[in-house]
Amino acid sequence: MRKGCPYGTHRVIEPRGLLPQPAWKLDNSMNIYDNEVLIDVEVLNIDSASFTQIEEEAGGDEKKIAAIMTGIVKERGKHHNPVTGSGGMLIGRAKEIGPAWRGKSPLEAGQRLATLVSLSLTPLRIDKIKKIHKDIDQVEIEGQAILFESGIFAVLPEDLPQTLSLAVLDVAGAAAQTAKLVRPGDRVVIIGAGGKSGLLCLFEARKRAGVTGQVIGIAPRETSKNRAESTGYCDVVLMADAADALGIMNQVKAATGGAMADVTINCVNIPNTELSSILATRDGGLVYFFSMATSFTAAALGAEGVGKDVTMIVGNGYTRDHAAISLNIMRESPVLRKIFEELYS
Amino acid sequence: MRKGCPYGTHRVIEPRGLLPQPAWKLDNSMNIYDNEVLIDVEVLNIDSASFTQIEEEAGGDEKKIAAIMTGIVKERGKHHNPVTGSGGMLIGRAKEIGPAWRGKSPLEAGQRLATLVSLSLTPLRIDKIKKIHKDIDQVEIEGQAILFESGIFAVLPEDLPQTLSLAVLDVAGAAAQTAKLVRPGDRVVIIGAGGKSGLLCLFEARKRAGVTGQVIGIAPRETSKNRAESTGYCDVVLMADAADALGIMNQVKAATGGAMADVTINCVNIPNTELSSILATRDGGLVYFFSMATSFTAAALGAEGVGKDVTMIVGNGYTRDHAAISLNIMRESPVLRKIFEELYS
Repeated sequence: MRKGCPYGTHRVIEPRGLLPQPAWKLDNSMNIYDNEVLIDVEVLNIDSASFTQIEEEAGGDEKKIAAIMTGIVKERGKHHNPVTGSGGMLIGRAKEIGPAWRGKSPLEAGQRLATLVSLSLTPLRIDKIKKIHKDIDQVEIEGQAILFESGIFAVLPEDLPQTLSLAVLDVAGAAAQTAKLVRPGDRVVIIGAGGKSGLLCLFEARKRAGVTGQVIGIAPRETSKNRAESTGYCDVVLMADAADALGIMNQVKAATGGAMADVTINCVNIPNTELSSILATRDGGLVYFFSMATSFTAAALGAEGVGKDVTMIVGNGYTRDHAAISLNIMRESPVLRKIFEELYS
Repeated sequence: MRKGCPYGTHRVIEPRGLLPQPAWKLDNSMNIYDNEVLIDVEVLNIDSASFTQIEEEAGGDEKKIAAIMTGIVKERGKHHNPVTGSGGMLIGRAKEIGPAWRGKSPLEAGQRLATLVSLSLTPLRIDKIKKIHKDIDQVEIEGQAILFESGIFAVLPEDLPQTLSLAVLDVAGAAAQTAKLVRPGDRVVIIGAGGKSGLLCLFEARKRAGVTGQVIGIAPRETSKNRAESTGYCDVVLMADAADALGIMNQVKAATGGAMADVTINCVNIPNTELSSILATRDGGLVYFFSMATSFTAAALGAEGVGKDVTMIVGNGYTRDHAAISLNIMRESPVLRKIFEELYS
């Protein structure tokens, strides 16, 4: 059996020397290398930007949507939308597991899984498009895909509805990172506390900071403030515009008796919130940017401009066991499960 | 005496509620608040992008350059170029130190200092432009400026030439962060090892990792490779394109016997080097991005795409005592002092 590279470079057809994500075309033949997993695909969960573009190009016609999707995969060996550059994820069942993979992971053939790496780097073959769910950007297909040795995934739990699991997995990184960062007694500020990732972070922050810690939520509106409060995990929820650096600094100052946050977690997807996060945090504290709207230079120059010695961390969507940590919140927290079932499934 | 905000918001004239850097206009009256320092300015070191723009607008004419500069300061109360958005730094002597500042810092009236916060947030008055040095973007003036309580600065040492001090202060953050991150026995990879900040990082990495650690430099060309090697601080210097992720991964793998780096420090100012840094680092390791060309999303999604659990830190230009740590390298390392004197002063 052929030996593969952990990152899947053995599947790159052109240009050679690139990784699978930036490459134009991948080898999507379904004879696996020794470190790959073959998946029988059930559902493609197309990235929202990508699906919208395809739907518009097709004028909403489902046959044309299907033709565009199969065209992309035929040309590139992966569902990597050439217009938007984005992918999505997939759900399927493990069919065959390479011998070099076994022992490294408890995955077994037959288990249902969701891939947590982008479709933009996943070798895929579509045999048939069965049904298009335009309202949720999902497409049921018959086909197969390849997961590389470095490819992260989650076995879908039997005790949770699939839509609930997917909603949680979508933001699994933030909660798991919070679990690893927050220490007993920490003062934690969570900006965007009423949103999907913010809610999961509240749970982990409370659990890890404990009774001697302080958990402060920040939300922009009454509805999200009420939602964060209803969890019972916050000492206080402040209402503030996440971009209002001085307003947030002053509110956090008041709420912490001047001590400021040991850890600030930014979970909002709007720009210009770097300085709010920095000013909410004490000197020597830690800022975790999970927001994809974060500007690297705004964070770096912002901290320098106010002379603040904080450690600023780039939110890594992956951390070890992030899926297990996040999915388990739905079992540990009935209140969050209820909120998630109402909002996201 | 009037009490000031640590971040200088008391000086913002318009729009109110903003911090001094994004604000359009500052109050540049030179009666200090209780937590400010008044500086007699000697030299403005204009940001390169800003000076080039002004020089072009003036057609190279020195009188017109002077008129544009005084015009900016008259209109905005700070030398914040409205076209480029950038500032620069200044050198001067502390003239008056507010009572609320004293005790927090050993700065004394009469000492020469360089401000390390941007001119784009520094209240400034220009009385006279004395001399324009077009080759080095510096302008000698008579005038005064205000340093806020949060404003970082460095007292210029008496035993080092001023140009040498400025060259070191320009990249003070990287070396000081390296000093704080690297532990004895660490394997450290420094990308851009032959450049200004890279060279300082090599020194600190070697000093902190010690004889049981491993310091691996990466440089793009023979000249920079030779320069890094000539320091004697590297176990090996690899020649590689910083954007070639797979090439760097394989070279670092070979150099570390498969262990990969515990700490990777990225000091290159070219784009698309995030994945090289991530793949050079072991799972559970740390990547420090000092490059201002770093893309937040490329780092976050890049690590997720290859399933790498690394902690990625946004290079904060400021960390406590960064100026003292970096300037002292010029005293500790004769070899780096020689290189810096030849290249940068």
